[in-house]
Amino acid sequence: MVSHPDDETFGCGGTLALHASRGVPVDILCLSCDPPERRTEITGAAEELGAREPIVLEDQSVVGSPGLIRRVSDSIVALRPSVVVTHIPFDYHREHRAAYEVVKEAVEWAAHTTMYAEPCVVERLLLMEVNTLIPTPHVLVDISNVIDEKRRAIQRHVSQLSKFTWGYYEEFNEKKAELRGVQGGCAYAEAFMEEPLPRSGPFYPVKSVSSLL
Amino acid sequence: MVSHPDDETFGCGGTLALHASRGVPVDILCLSCDPPERRTEITGAAEELGAREPIVLEDQSVVGSPGLIRRVSDSIVALRPSVVVTHIPFDYHREHRAAYEVVKEAVEWAAHTTMYAEPCVVERLLLMEVNTLIPTPHVLVDISNVIDEKRRAIQRHVSQLSKFTWGYYEEFNEKKAELRGVQGGCAYAEAFMEEPLPRSGPFYPVKSVSSLL
Amino acid sequence: MVSHPDDETFGCGGTLALHASRGVPVDILCLSCDPPERRTEITGAAEELGAREPIVLEDQSVVGSPGLIRRVSDSIVALRPSVVVTHIPFDYHREHRAAYEVVKEAVEWAAHTTMYAEPCVVERLLLMEVNTLIPTPHVLVDISNVIDEKRRAIQRHVSQLSKFTWGYYEEFNEKKAELRGVQGGCAYAEAFMEEPLPRSGPFYPVKSVSSLL
Amino acid sequence: MVSHPDDETFGCGGTLALHASRGVPVDILCLSCDPPERRTEITGAAEELGAREPIVLEDQSVVGSPGLIRRVSDSIVALRPSVVVTHIPFDYHREHRAAYEVVKEAVEWAAHTTMYAEPCVVERLLLMEVNTLIPTPHVLVDISNVIDEKRRAIQRHVSQLSKFTWGYYEEFNEKKAELRGVQGGCAYAEAFMEEPLPRSGPFYPVKSVSSLL
Amino acid sequence: MVSHPDDETFGCGGTLALHASRGVPVDILCLSCDPPERRTEITGAAEELGAREPIVLEDQSVVGSPGLIRRVSDSIVALRPSVVVTHIPFDYHREHRAAYEVVKEAVEWAAHTTMYAEPCVVERLLLMEVNTLIPTPHVLVDISNVIDEKRRAIQRHVSQLSKFTWGYYEEFNEKKAELRGVQGGCAYAEAFMEEPLPRSGPFYPVKSVSSLL
Amino acid sequence: MVSHPDDETFGCGGTLALHASRGVPVDILCLSCDPPERRTEITGAAEELGAREPIVLEDQSVVGSPGLIRRVSDSIVALRPSVVVTHIPFDYHREHRAAYEVVKEAVEWAAHTTMYAEPCVVERLLLMEVNTLIPTPHVLVDISNVIDEKRRAIQRHVSQLSKFTWGYYEEFNEKKAELRGVQGGCAYAEAFMEEPLPRSGPFYPVKSVSSLL
Repeated sequence: MVSHPDDETFGCGGTLALHASRGVPVDILCLSCDPPERRTEITGAAEELGAREPIVLEDQSVVGSPGLIRRVSDSIVALRPSVVVTHIPFDYHREHRAAYEVVKEAVEWAAHTTMYAEPCVVERLLLMEVNTLIPTPHVLVDISNVIDEKRRAIQRHVSQLSKFTWGYYEEFNEKKAELRGVQGGCAYAEAFMEEPLPRSGPFYPVKSVSSLL
Repeated sequence: MVSHPDDETFGCGGTLALHASRGVPVDILCLSCDPPERRTEITGAAEELGAREPIVLEDQSVVGSPGLIRRVSDSIVALRPSVVVTHIPFDYHREHRAAYEVVKEAVEWAAHTTMYAEPCVVERLLLMEVNTLIPTPHVLVDISNVIDEKRRAIQRHVSQLSKFTWGYYEEFNEKKAELRGVQGGCAYAEAFMEEPLPRSGPFYPVKSVSSLL
Repeated sequence: MVSHPDDETFGCGGTLALHASRGVPVDILCLSCDPPERRTEITGAAEELGAREPIVLEDQSVVGSPGLIRRVSDSIVALRPSVVVTHIPFDYHREHRAAYEVVKEAVEWAAHTTMYAEPCVVERLLLMEVNTLIPTPHVLVDISNVIDEKRRAIQRHVSQLSKFTWGYYEEFNEKKAELRGVQGGCAYAEAFMEEPLPRSGPFYPVKSVSSLL
Repeated sequence: MVSHPDDETFGCGGTLALHASRGVPVDILCLSCDPPERRTEITGAAEELGAREPIVLEDQSVVGSPGLIRRVSDSIVALRPSVVVTHIPFDYHREHRAAYEVVKEAVEWAAHTTMYAEPCVVERLLLMEVNTLIPTPHVLVDISNVIDEKRRAIQRHVSQLSKFTWGYYEEFNEKKAELRGVQGGCAYAEAFMEEPLPRSGPFYPVKSVSSLL
Repeated sequence: MVSHPDDETFGCGGTLALHASRGVPVDILCLSCDPPERRTEITGAAEELGAREPIVLEDQSVVGSPGLIRRVSDSIVALRPSVVVTHIPFDYHREHRAAYEVVKEAVEWAAHTTMYAEPCVVERLLLMEVNTLIPTPHVLVDISNVIDEKRRAIQRHVSQLSKFTWGYYEEFNEKKAELRGVQGGCAYAEAFMEEPLPRSGPFYPVKSVSSLL
Repeated sequence: MVSHPDDETFGCGGTLALHASRGVPVDILCLSCDPPERRTEITGAAEELGAREPIVLEDQSVVGSPGLIRRVSDSIVALRPSVVVTHIPFDYHREHRAAYEVVKEAVEWAAHTTMYAEPCVVERLLLMEVNTLIPTPHVLVDISNVIDEKRRAIQRHVSQLSKFTWGYYEEFNEKKAELRGVQGGCAYAEAFMEEPLPRSGPFYPVKSVSSLL
C-alpha cells in the first residue's frame, strides 16, 4: 500500500515477486496517481512482479483524511491480506509519511467488528525503504531469485526513469539490493521494519492467544 | 528475565505456567536478590509455575554495566530461549528500566558469532507489565487455565505480601488479570508489548528470510 | 470535552458525578455525534451523572481545524471551567488524539485577552483513559460513592452497549474502576494524567504568582 | 536540590528568598562541591536568601547512582519539603541533567512506606533554569520584592564571579529576571516548569483524592 | 518566512537589518495577513529594516497543505535565498509550528530538478524565537549596530502594539535582545537554531562535497 | 573520535584520506582497544589513510564517565581540530552510542575558558555510519579519488577481517560506498549527519557572529 506508482517496485518489488512466484496472491494499492498516465506504468510493473491488477486511487497527492482512511480500510476488508507493507514514518517524502499514517489507521479500523460485518485482522505490518534508508532493519528478505523480475518492473516506470539521463533509479536500486544482500548473507535483499500491531481494542474478532511459540 | 524476585510472577507468571503446562521448558533469570532470603521465595514460585530452578544473581540493585550484560548474554547462550520476556522501558521503577536495557543488549550480543561459538538467536522479545500498565498491548495471553498456579506463586512471595495488611498485591494482580481478560475475551489474561529485534548486524548466524508468511 | 457520546461516561463519569454531587457545576462538551440519535444517549447519561445539558457538535468526525478550535475556545469562555478533562494524546483512537490537540489549543486561546473580552484561564487540564490505559497516573479520584451513578450512565449509551452481546463495556469499565481502586486504596477510582499549562504568553490576564504553596 | 553551589541562587534564589521572607522554612541540598571552599559561598548565599544552613555533599561531580539517590531520598524524608525545585532535564550541563534524574528518583522513593517508616510525599516538583532557558514556562514567580536579596546572594559566589572580568553572571541573571518579569507582568520574575508526580505506586501513604478543585 | 506580520521583526528583524545594511538582498515572505490592513504594517517594517517589498499571502490562518507548500517553494525558486529563517517547531503558537512544517517542506521541494527547471538549493535553514525561547541556541547574531532599525520596525506594527497599554512588545523584545546580548558578548543579539538540511535525495542539482572545511 | 580500531576506517576512512591528501592534518582518537594488539592495526590503517599516529586509549570497553570525557576534551584541546567526526547516537552498537555521548560532551567542555587556558572551539561535529545506516544524510563526501586508500586501510584490520571467511567487511564497505556514491552523483561516497553545536554557554571565547553568509 504505497503513495505513488513506482514505490511498490522500488520498496518491495522483489518481495512481491518472490511471494507471487510461490502462488501467494499479491495485491497493490496505490494511494495517488499523478499524472493519470502513470497507471499504465504501475499496471505493467505489477505484471512483471506477478501481482494482480493494482488498485489505483487517482488523487493528486496523499493527504490524511477520514475519507482516505475509509477507502483504504474498505480495500483491506475486500482484499483480506495477511501481511501489509507500506512506507516508513521517517521517510523524507511527506506523502510517504502520510501514507504510513493512513495505512496504519486503516489496518486498525479494518479489524473492527463494529465497522465491518467481516472484519480483516492483518497479521503483520511491515515498513519498507524507498529513498530514505532504514537504519537497522528487522527483516531482510532474500530476493536473489527474483532480481530480474524487479529489474524488469523498474523498467516499466518509464516516466520516472526518464527524469535522469544516467540511470539513477536503476543504479540506486541495484546498489541498495546488493548492500542489503551483503547484510542478509545473499546476493540481493530488501529491508523492512516490523510495526507490531495493537491487540487490545474491544472490537477485534480475535483477541487473545494461548501460546507465544 | 526480571529485576527482582516476584516480577516473574506478577508480570508473566500465568504465561510461564501456561507454557510449562504444555511441556515447554521455562527458565527464569532474576538480575538481583536483596535480601538473599528472597531466593527461597522465587524458587517456590518457580515450582508453582512449573518453571525450572531459577538463576538468581545476588546483586543488591540492577545497574546497567558491560559485566552484567555479559552475564545475561552468557545465560541466553546457555539456556537457548526462543522467546524472552522482560520489563517495559517506561516502567516507573528504575531497576525495571535498567533490566530492559540490559536484557535487550544481551539478546543482541548472544546472537553474535564473534562472541559465542554457538550463538543463540532469540526469536521474540516481549515486554510485560508489573505496576506500570501497558497503554495498548500487542499480545494478550489467555491464562484462564492457569490462574490458580499464578495465585499460588504469588503466595510464595511472603516477604512482599507482608508489606501490606490488606492484600494489595493479590488484589492488584487479580484485577489486572480480569481487566486484561475482558480485553482478551477470556476470564484472565496477561498483556505484553512486542519489541521487534534487529536483524542487520553482520554477526548473526541466520540473516535473511525467504517468506513473510 | 470529549470526542464522542460515551467517552464522558467511560473516561470520567464518576469524577463528574462526584463533583456534581457536591454542587459543583459540571458541563460536558462533545465534539462529534454520529449518528445524531446518540445525542439522546449523552443527554441521558448527563442526567444520571448530575451534569448540565451537554453541548453537542453534530459533526461526523473529529478533525483538527482552526474552526473547531474556535468553537471549543468559545465554549470555554462561555462555560468558564476551572478544570477541563479531555483525552490522552497516545489514545489508540485517532479522533481521541485529535480531541486532545483541539482542546489543548482551545484552552490556550480561551485565556487570551486579545481573543476575548473576558478570557477564561483554565486552572487544570486533566487527561483521562477510555480504552487505552494510562501507564502511571498522576491523579486517582475515589469514585466509590458514585459508582452507581456511573453504572446507570453507562446504561444510557444503549447504541454502544448493543454492539456486544456479552456486556463488554460494562465489564471493562467495572474492572478498570476496580483496578484503579486497588491502586488508589479505595473500592473504585478513575485515573488521570495532569498536563501542566504554559503561563508565559503575553496575553493572559493573570501571569505570575507570589507563592508556590 | 541542585548540582553545584550557585545553582540555588541563579535558578531559584528569588523564589527561595520570597518564601523565606514569609516564614516558610527553606532548605538547600547541593549534590556536589568542588573545590570544597565553595561550601563557604553557598552558606553565605543561603544566609542572604534567608534559607537554613545548606546540606552540601562534597562530591567532585554528580553521577547518578543508587547510593546518591538514597542520600537524596534520606534528605527528603528528613527535611519533609512540600515543594522541591531542581534542574530541567534538557539543561546543557550534564551534571544538571544528572541532578534532575537523581532528584526525580529520590522524590519517588522518599514517598514509599516500604522504604521509610515516615515517608514524605512531595506535593510539587518544579524545574528551574540556570543557563539553558525554559521555552514556555508553567509558573512565573514574582520576585520583585526580593531582588536585592538575590543580588546579594549572587555576590557571595565570589569564585564564580571571578571567572569573568565584566560581570557576566550578574548581568545574565539581571536580564533573565527582567525578561521573565515582562512575561509575568512584574519587574522581576523566575520561571519554572511543573513536573507532575506519579501517584499510582502501591507504596504511597496517600493515594487517591476526592476532589479536583 | 513567517506566519504573521510582526514575526519577521520580533524574531529576526535585527538580523535582516544587519544583512541589508551590508547590501545583502533581504526578502520577507509572510504566510498570512489577518486583517488585511496589517499588510501596511509589515511593509513599513520592511522599509525600516532595509528589506525589499514583502510578499504577503492574505490567508486568514496558516494551515499546512500541498497548495501552501507549493506557493512557498515557488517563492523560494523565484527569490533564490542562500539562507532561510523561519519559526521553531516547538513554538507555543500553532500557526508558527505550521509555518515551520510548510517552510521546511518547501525548502526540500524547491531544490528538486524534477519540480523546477531552475531549482534553488538553500544553504542554511535557521529557526528563530518570537515568544517561545530557544533553550540553547546554535547561533547568536550581534545586532548592536542595528538595534535602532529593529526598534523602529517594531513601532510600525501599530495594531499589535495597541493590544497593550504598557508597551509589552517593546519591553519584551528589548529585554530578549539584551539577554541574548549578554550570552553573545555584545550589547544586543538575536538567537537561532540551525536545522541541518538533508542532501541525499536524488533530485538535487548539487549532491556531494569534496571538503568539510 | 571512534570507539574501536576499524571504526575510523569503515565510517570515515575515505574522508580522512581525502583531507590528508590535501595536506590537512588528520588525527584519530580511539576510545578503546581490546585486545591491545589491535593498536598495530589502527596504526597501519592510519598510515594508509595519511593520518597522523593515532591516539589509542587501551580500555576494554567504552563507558561514559567524567574521567573519559575529560581525557577526550584534553585531547581536543591538544589537537585543536576544526571538524570532529564520531558515531551516530542511534547506532546499534552500545559502545558507539556511548562514544557519541562522550565526544559530544567533550566538544562542549573543550571550548570553555574556565576549563582550559587555551580552549578549542570545534566548528563542526559530524556523525558517521558504520553498520547502522543514516536514513537521510546531511553531507555526502565524494571519496572516489581515495577509494584505494580506504581499501588498503580496511586490509590492515586483519583481526576483524578474519572473523568472516567470505569478505563481509570488504563487501559491505564497497557496496555502502557505491550506494552513497549513487546518491552523491559520484563513484564512491561517505555519508554524514551534521550535529549543530550550541553557542550560548557563558564560557566560549567566541560567542556571536555578525553574518550568516
